[in-house]
Amino acid sequence: MKVRLVLEYDGTAYAGWQIQSNGHTVQAVVEEALTRLSGEFLRLHPSGRTDAGVHARGMVAHFTIVRELPMAAFLQGLNRLLPMDISVREANRVADDFHARYDSTGKWYRYTLQTGEMRSALRARTSWHVRGALDLDLMRRAAADFIGRHDFSAFRAAGCEARTTVREIYSLEISAVDELIQIDVKGKGFLRNMVRVMVGTLVEIGWGKRPPGDVAALLAEGRRELSGRTAPPQGLCLMEVWYGEDSPLKTGGGPL
Amino acid sequence: MKVRLVLEYDGTAYAGWQIQSNGHTVQAVVEEALTRLSGEFLRLHPSGRTDAGVHARGMVAHFTIVRELPMAAFLQGLNRLLPMDISVREANRVADDFHARYDSTGKWYRYTLQTGEMRSALRARTSWHVRGALDLDLMRRAAADFIGRHDFSAFRAAGCEARTTVREIYSLEISAVDELIQIDVKGKGFLRNMVRVMVGTLVEIGWGKRPPGDVAALLAEGRRELSGRTAPPQGLCLMEVWYGEDSPLKTGGGPL
Repeated sequence: MKVRLVLEYDGTAYAGWQIQSNGHTVQAVVEEALTRLSGEFLRLHPSGRTDAGVHARGMVAHFTIVRELPMAAFLQGLNRLLPMDISVREANRVADDFHARYDSTGKWYRYTLQTGEMRSALRARTSWHVRGALDLDLMRRAAADFIGRHDFSAFRAAGCEARTTVREIYSLEISAVDELIQIDVKGKGFLRNMVRVMVGTLVEIGWGKRPPGDVAALLAEGRRELSGRTAPPQGLCLMEVWYGEDSPLKTGGGPL
Repeated sequence: MKVRLVLEYDGTAYAGWQIQSNGHTVQAVVEEALTRLSGEFLRLHPSGRTDAGVHARGMVAHFTIVRELPMAAFLQGLNRLLPMDISVREANRVADDFHARYDSTGKWYRYTLQTGEMRSALRARTSWHVRGALDLDLMRRAAADFIGRHDFSAFRAAGCEARTTVREIYSLEISAVDELIQIDVKGKGFLRNMVRVMVGTLVEIGWGKRPPGDVAALLAEGRRELSGRTAPPQGLCLMEVWYGEDSPLKTGGGPL
């Protein structure tokens, strides 16, 4: 049978999602717990990878298992076996043709900035401390240009090998609560480091080091070396992955 | 000169505030950073100790130093030298007779509960995961009996050696946001583990395992073995320490 898990993790201690020859990864730890639970060697297939230090509130992954265990075994059983920094939020039996990556219709990422002159020890694991005043109006004006379908060649990791660089952003909202600024990005799919380069560029615009028109220009030119820095991983969290009709903010195709 | 620091820390990695022969403590790490900064051996005097695993958003501590350094040296300098899980929020020169502990007129502690069937990996370091439904109305009714001056003998650590067990609570508020419940306790002073035993008892009342009238009875009888469990340390955070006229919720003496 096929099972879909919704996983939450504090990525601080992990070398990202994907199993590597050297490095403690979320995938390896969850697969090991599944093997202890079921006696089977299983492979977890995620909706997408997360990089080292990135968190997840709602990572989705599926696996196929021979034994027909009740879902409670995965929920309670895995939560007992997993370390405190990984937890299972949901376990559901799904159709045999379900695929966590190919069936996904959207994702929501949240990036958290901590402003203020002094860094905050209690926010260190989950935010990027940005010194200097940020003009949120400038950032929001620039952010509007990300909405829709664009070629995001200028907003990805140097080593990104995606076949196509066109992606669709449904919404990008910037909200401020006390010293925290949350940047919520929802879209159909993302290139490697895409949200982090978008955030790095928006922060440079907020500082006044770039004009807000840069986003449209960078999307048009597609040159990574002209866009902003890659924001550090600890501010990023994969909040939710959508399937089928769940995706609430799908705007439809649009030109390109 | 005398300097007052406001410190924030994630207590997860520490054996509490106070220097011990064996154990990594907040006091030891900050004193070492001060010595590196100033070249002097200094002693930090806190407003009170925090136990192993307890966090602080606004711990206050003072020290006396021979060299007259500018406050920016302590703010920026210490924040560069300290590990990511400790930060300095304020540094102020104070009068020579200031004392972080004796001059304190009040403290605010926040205890955070995470409810819901599944534990949350991202909340693990800063909350107590409580399974089963909590009746907040029962908890609030019981909490009202804590307000005012009482003998808190039933609400302290077994090893607590305070000379007097009478303390005054200014307010206790219970608020719920999604899966989180925050219990904010403000008072003139606290016995060792006092907030954690108060919270453990309130949770047992919320579960319906004790009647809400238990709080008044326990305060009157003063027997620790009859009150609730000690809530675990990671849910507790020292939010603020007040001095002089700052204390906003001081209710005045009252009988006892």
